[in-house]
Amino acid sequence: MNNFLNSTSVVPEFVGSTELGDTIGMCIPAVDAMLLDKLQVSTKKYSVIGILSSRTGAGPQILAMDEAVKATNTEVLDVEWPRDTKGGAGHGVLILIGGNDPSDVRQAISVALENLPRTFGDIYNSPAGHLELQFTASAAGAVHMAFGAPIGKAYGLICGAPSGIGVVMADTAIKTAGVEVIKFASPSHGTSFSNEGALHISGDSGAVRQAVIAGREVGLKLLGQLGGVEPKNDFPAYIK
Amino acid sequence: MNNFLNSTSVVPEFVGSTELGDTIGMCIPAVDAMLLDKLQVSTKKYSVIGILSSRTGAGPQILAMDEAVKATNTEVLDVEWPRDTKGGAGHGVLILIGGNDPSDVRQAISVALENLPRTFGDIYNSPAGHLELQFTASAAGAVHMAFGAPIGKAYGLICGAPSGIGVVMADTAIKTAGVEVIKFASPSHGTSFSNEGALHISGDSGAVRQAVIAGREVGLKLLGQLGGVEPKNDFPAYIK
Amino acid sequence: MNNFLNSTSVVPEFVGSTELGDTIGMCIPAVDAMLLDKLQVSTKKYSVIGILSSRTGAGPQILAMDEAVKATNTEVLDVEWPRDTKGGAGHGVLILIGGNDPSDVRQAISVALENLPRTFGDIYNSPAGHLELQFTASAAGAVHMAFGAPIGKAYGLICGAPSGIGVVMADTAIKTAGVEVIKFASPSHGTSFSNEGALHISGDSGAVRQAVIAGREVGLKLLGQLGGVEPKNDFPAYIK
Repeated sequence: MNNFLNSTSVVPEFVGSTELGDTIGMCIPAVDAMLLDKLQVSTKKYSVIGILSSRTGAGPQILAMDEAVKATNTEVLDVEWPRDTKGGAGHGVLILIGGNDPSDVRQAISVALENLPRTFGDIYNSPAGHLELQFTASAAGAVHMAFGAPIGKAYGLICGAPSGIGVVMADTAIKTAGVEVIKFASPSHGTSFSNEGALHISGDSGAVRQAVIAGREVGLKLLGQLGGVEPKNDFPAYIK
Repeated sequence: MNNFLNSTSVVPEFVGSTELGDTIGMCIPAVDAMLLDKLQVSTKKYSVIGILSSRTGAGPQILAMDEAVKATNTEVLDVEWPRDTKGGAGHGVLILIGGNDPSDVRQAISVALENLPRTFGDIYNSPAGHLELQFTASAAGAVHMAFGAPIGKAYGLICGAPSGIGVVMADTAIKTAGVEVIKFASPSHGTSFSNEGALHISGDSGAVRQAVIAGREVGLKLLGQLGGVEPKNDFPAYIK
Repeated sequence: MNNFLNSTSVVPEFVGSTELGDTIGMCIPAVDAMLLDKLQVSTKKYSVIGILSSRTGAGPQILAMDEAVKATNTEVLDVEWPRDTKGGAGHGVLILIGGNDPSDVRQAISVALENLPRTFGDIYNSPAGHLELQFTASAAGAVHMAFGAPIGKAYGLICGAPSGIGVVMADTAIKTAGVEVIKFASPSHGTSFSNEGALHISGDSGAVRQAVIAGREVGLKLLGQLGGVEPKNDFPAYIK
């Protein structure tokens, strides 16, 4: 599945796109001051704005962008949460980043797009719902802004839809290993009314990983029971 | 349609599930204290947590749970409202209940699942939208928490989607019989941005029932006009 | 596509409906006082209530209603924003209008329904998202209430989904002509969690039109890149 379109486009802002989550990456080399004034960004100091925008899957794009900002001289300015997934139970995402040099920002967006097949690895779908697991040994600016995770510490996401499955996944994950609970998000609290139960954890890298894997195991069984079919991921699981 | 899966599951939390609204029932016999701390429950005094979670249809699950808590030694702790319906115009639901004994809580969840074919009886769908009618002669804890209905009094729900149909249904219902209006919910007020107009009424049992039936009649005609086909229910109407 | 159903209906409130956005128009000649008390209307002084309600497309209905209130003795009382589009990335809408004479209100609703093929002219869809452009040389009550546009001045809407496309469209539009920015709406700010980036502008008629056209041009290219197919409108573009 080689679905990246690269910049032979006549639109200079275009960086790339992929069918994965219907994700598009763009860069505005010199943002208009009137627009910048209206954008909900954490700082107005950058005139180069990078954009990663998708219909499906906030987590994969946020984790992919987390690696991208580590590798480039850029900063995450805004993470927004549409209630989307094209009729599914979750979100899409809008991520804005800033930088001083258009080539840095374009590179960050490209790196994020290239990371998506990995960060989509632990997304499991069935006709009845989905599961999402994410893990990083060291959270950076995207994960921090999106989920409130402490920078430099391991971070894990354990998420199930419909949301009740996420409650049981969370309970199992916390009981499995000594981790710190950042928050538990649910349809009416901490989501954009998505049908997800999502536990956000931090702490020791081994413990966070172990908790995520335990949550995944029980989630796969529950979602399989609900839908009557085994939930499937489109790419290899990366959390091992 | 015998789609209840029962607990030969290897996951001990699983109670049952059904294709109706993609609804799953679960029970955590001893919830982790760190998770309980983060859950948005009305009281933290229960360590046994029951979960009813669906993609489609808040009303049917809430009314079904209302009967279940009447019949068991359990209490409704939380009702949350995802904007879901798998691309439709309404909600899904997350209901948490508490109890002191896992067998009580599992029984309450089972009773609620068994009630669903009845409470889905007055859900009418067409390609253009849906109608939902609910009625109980005596509201209990689920209907009280979800809709603000006075406990022990008759309660009725008159709901149409798209939301404008619900406005006319509400007007007709109120004019039909002397009832008390609890609230009128609409896309930007009192829903999770669903495309529903929903009247919640209370009062004398006969009057509430009559108002619900009158709202249903006008709603069926309007939704039929919009979609060009007669809206259909999947189970027999229970409000007569 | 002659899909307007007219009032041979047995429901006296029915005015008309169309497949365009699954839009239904209705009129309550004498609204119940208890219902009026609960409706979120800007004034309670009208007893005749007109309703325009849709599953898809707030903008087309709002612009269509804007022309209708100019042409009739009616007033816009409420604009609400479900997160709908039947699984798409945008909204639906609920519009309530008021008047003193049922024939005025019915006429306004009819005029709005008749305007829809025009105001749907600059809606472009692809499997990956959509674009919406709207323009009026002189904003009236519907556009004012819905978007905060100054009455009597030109108004333009430049909207793209997924939302990042709307950011680049907005930047291009503002740079093209000297316009006043009313606001920029995005998934977590100023929408009902839709996956849209939407710029609202006001000012000189020629400048607003030029900005809208420039935003459309870049949006069509970006959405075409994302989806791999050219976005299509179902009716002729009206902004020229």
